[in-house]
Amino acid sequence: MFKRVLAALMITGAFAAPVIAQSPAELDPEIEATAKNLIERAKVDEVGLKFVEDLTTEVGQRLAGSEAEAQARNWSVVELTNLGFDQVRVEPFKIPFWSRKHEAVAVVAPSPQPLVATALGGSAATPDGGVTGQVVRFASLAELQAAPISQVDGKIVFIDETMIKTMDGSGYGMAVRKRSQCAEAATSKGALACLIRSVGTQPHRMPHTGIMARDGAEGVGPVAAISGPDADQLTRLLERSPVTVSVDIQTEIKPNAPSGNVIAELTGTDLADEIVLIGCHLDSWDLGTGALDDGAGCGIVVGAAMLIADLPERPRRTIRVVLYGAEEVGLFGATAYAREHGDNLDKHVLASESDFGAGPIWRFQTRFGEAALPYARTLQNLLMPLGVTPDENRANGGPDIGILARAGVPVVTPGQNGMDYFDYHHTPDDTFDKIKPDEFRQNVAVYAAFTYIAAETGWDFRKQPELNSQGTE
Amino acid sequence: MFKRVLAALMITGAFAAPVIAQSPAELDPEIEATAKNLIERAKVDEVGLKFVEDLTTEVGQRLAGSEAEAQARNWSVVELTNLGFDQVRVEPFKIPFWSRKHEAVAVVAPSPQPLVATALGGSAATPDGGVTGQVVRFASLAELQAAPISQVDGKIVFIDETMIKTMDGSGYGMAVRKRSQCAEAATSKGALACLIRSVGTQPHRMPHTGIMARDGAEGVGPVAAISGPDADQLTRLLERSPVTVSVDIQTEIKPNAPSGNVIAELTGTDLADEIVLIGCHLDSWDLGTGALDDGAGCGIVVGAAMLIADLPERPRRTIRVVLYGAEEVGLFGATAYAREHGDNLDKHVLASESDFGAGPIWRFQTRFGEAALPYARTLQNLLMPLGVTPDENRANGGPDIGILARAGVPVVTPGQNGMDYFDYHHTPDDTFDKIKPDEFRQNVAVYAAFTYIAAETGWDFRKQPELNSQGTE
Repeated sequence: MFKRVLAALMITGAFAAPVIAQSPAELDPEIEATAKNLIERAKVDEVGLKFVEDLTTEVGQRLAGSEAEAQARNWSVVELTNLGFDQVRVEPFKIPFWSRKHEAVAVVAPSPQPLVATALGGSAATPDGGVTGQVVRFASLAELQAAPISQVDGKIVFIDETMIKTMDGSGYGMAVRKRSQCAEAATSKGALACLIRSVGTQPHRMPHTGIMARDGAEGVGPVAAISGPDADQLTRLLERSPVTVSVDIQTEIKPNAPSGNVIAELTGTDLADEIVLIGCHLDSWDLGTGALDDGAGCGIVVGAAMLIADLPERPRRTIRVVLYGAEEVGLFGATAYAREHGDNLDKHVLASESDFGAGPIWRFQTRFGEAALPYARTLQNLLMPLGVTPDENRANGGPDIGILARAGVPVVTPGQNGMDYFDYHHTPDDTFDKIKPDEFRQNVAVYAAFTYIAAETGWDFRKQPELNSQGTE
Repeated sequence: MFKRVLAALMITGAFAAPVIAQSPAELDPEIEATAKNLIERAKVDEVGLKFVEDLTTEVGQRLAGSEAEAQARNWSVVELTNLGFDQVRVEPFKIPFWSRKHEAVAVVAPSPQPLVATALGGSAATPDGGVTGQVVRFASLAELQAAPISQVDGKIVFIDETMIKTMDGSGYGMAVRKRSQCAEAATSKGALACLIRSVGTQPHRMPHTGIMARDGAEGVGPVAAISGPDADQLTRLLERSPVTVSVDIQTEIKPNAPSGNVIAELTGTDLADEIVLIGCHLDSWDLGTGALDDGAGCGIVVGAAMLIADLPERPRRTIRVVLYGAEEVGLFGATAYAREHGDNLDKHVLASESDFGAGPIWRFQTRFGEAALPYARTLQNLLMPLGVTPDENRANGGPDIGILARAGVPVVTPGQNGMDYFDYHHTPDDTFDKIKPDEFRQNVAVYAAFTYIAAETGWDFRKQPELNSQGTE
């Protein structure tokens, strides 16, 4: 078995990268000393933590397209200007807007009882007063997709698939499939509505929302998530007898709602036209206050940038902080940024984003040109004392940066420990108190260090081996 | 310091009990063997656990005086009859009934945001449409009580007192004072309503309800609890600027609602008129499904009794299982029981109740006559291998049994580890999945063992030393 895996790795070249990266690039001692000093100062950061505290307190939830998201943009512009950033601005765009007006899910028979539930983002509304029907349970989305129409028609579908808890969040992608596909699979077979066991890993009666529609506005059918304990309860009831539930979802839809990306910069010196981009997203779901997702990410990149801003001299390249809008409902901010800056992407020398909570960074992935891997090794060596493992050259950049990575912009992904992230993510429990200051500050340290080095060294992270070269310089 | 403590203990006689209890009473080897066998069988109990699973699933919440509580009585009568208990019956009584119809608390200014809140049991309603006012925060109930009228009049009071997390639940009594007294203290000074930080120890956005009125129905003012993270949020907002909130509470009140105690027995043999009572309460708050409070207690005492029922022979005394009604709203079931059985209390040889969740029992307190303390030591020795520490002769019996203890009925209190109990208690999160089967079964083992011995030995737990005796027999 091992042999076959090894062979596969050798074929895909997965082994090549670490071999090349064995030799770190040399780092100017003064730059290294400054980077280490940034790391030390990050350990007592107050600016980044205060940014997320203030944002989640003074604005609260920031649903994409809502007045609250607009308030968050205004708030951020004032805040970033006061912090001393350059070129603070909003790049506006329009999105289809969806919001919940009312939602109620309850067992009607055999024993009336309310279920803790929330409509998924983009859920269609039910008819006024809701729908009532017998529940048909499926252990997985695949089971629903394989079921005959006769089993589903006129019923309320319940997909009871659980999510696997992992450090790297890899259980999420699989769990999300039922969220995005249940309404279509169910209503195409005549179901009245769909209920899913909440995506997420918490054992509490916390419902987990998230987008289900492809275009950010209304999806094909009514769909709500019920909390884990409520899914257990519904399953226990179904083991005993047929169960009838009512589902009432009322929503509001607007076609052209305002959103926007907030941008703030530290203008560089002799390489000011070259951009090191660090991002997060400003919008959040509406149930909590978007502290872990993604107020923390914004606090981390703002905090890191401010540590660099406080240095005696500005780095050579421009550091651009991007607070993306409307990430949650379909990466609208990422698309708008790529559209707006599409003719300037070759000047983006590096990009990274923080959008996985505030857990400590435990690995550091890159996606650099093959001949730039010594730079990866240098960065990784510097970060190891913070508990960060060097990792492979296969970073995808994350949700908002992915579009840049696919267009060839070099990216780094500082991988956070997300073991507990989905205990809070997209639930009412995503609030400021869930951020652990020490772990948050370790993130600030990592971002400050690699951002500064990328901006100050002038390294070319796109660098490819020359023809006939063996990959050494 | 130690010396003074020692002297104090000697004066209060706290040392006397353990000294007398040094010598356990002899236990018939056959009875001891049976008790040990009960303990072994309890470790794989299914009956008790199924009782609480079925009750919380098939009935769900069981608010005192509601149709659901009535359904729970009917359900219990069927269940206990099917299990083979004797004399299964309901002893009905009437209570003042309170229920919530609608509740909403929100920050109106400076940044509109909903707060996770729940009306306390017995809260007065607000005028239709609610009240809106500026928040005045107090760190404690005492601060509110000391405040001048001018500081409170026309405002919405917020008491931000936190609860201390302890193994024995001792933090609860202190925390509950703000729950029961805020409305009166606030409205007597002209406040529009009171908000309290939820009693409880969980870090989640779970509001914690509980009775605030003295008579179980309407209290003197509108009062709601907001979750811990919401209390943090409100405090952060108040640190920044004045805050206006809206509070809308609508309730239903009925003066003479039905409740009742459900009673089931294992009739004894030659001492059938002597009663060993083990109890719990059947009602629950309405937010969760009353699994830990107190479905678990009912499952524990029913499970323990059924293990005894399955023995080849019935014990000599009658074992009476009492599922009290309307505990949460003012111990109405306890009062009704004492009224109904007041002329027969001398035939109650021992009483105990389980009403502190399903955590493992870690100590065993008694309240026996002084000459009966060797019996306490015998029971304690038997339970030690289950991880139970012998404890003092100062059991108070618990909420429903307390009235019997005060009337002279000997009681035992198997003390559960309640470290996590107030993470769930009275919140939406009090659901079946929170019960850990192994810990639950340890409780069944303890109850089965002492109940059996009390019923089979004929021991007199009231026994006092004879005049001029040194306390030895």
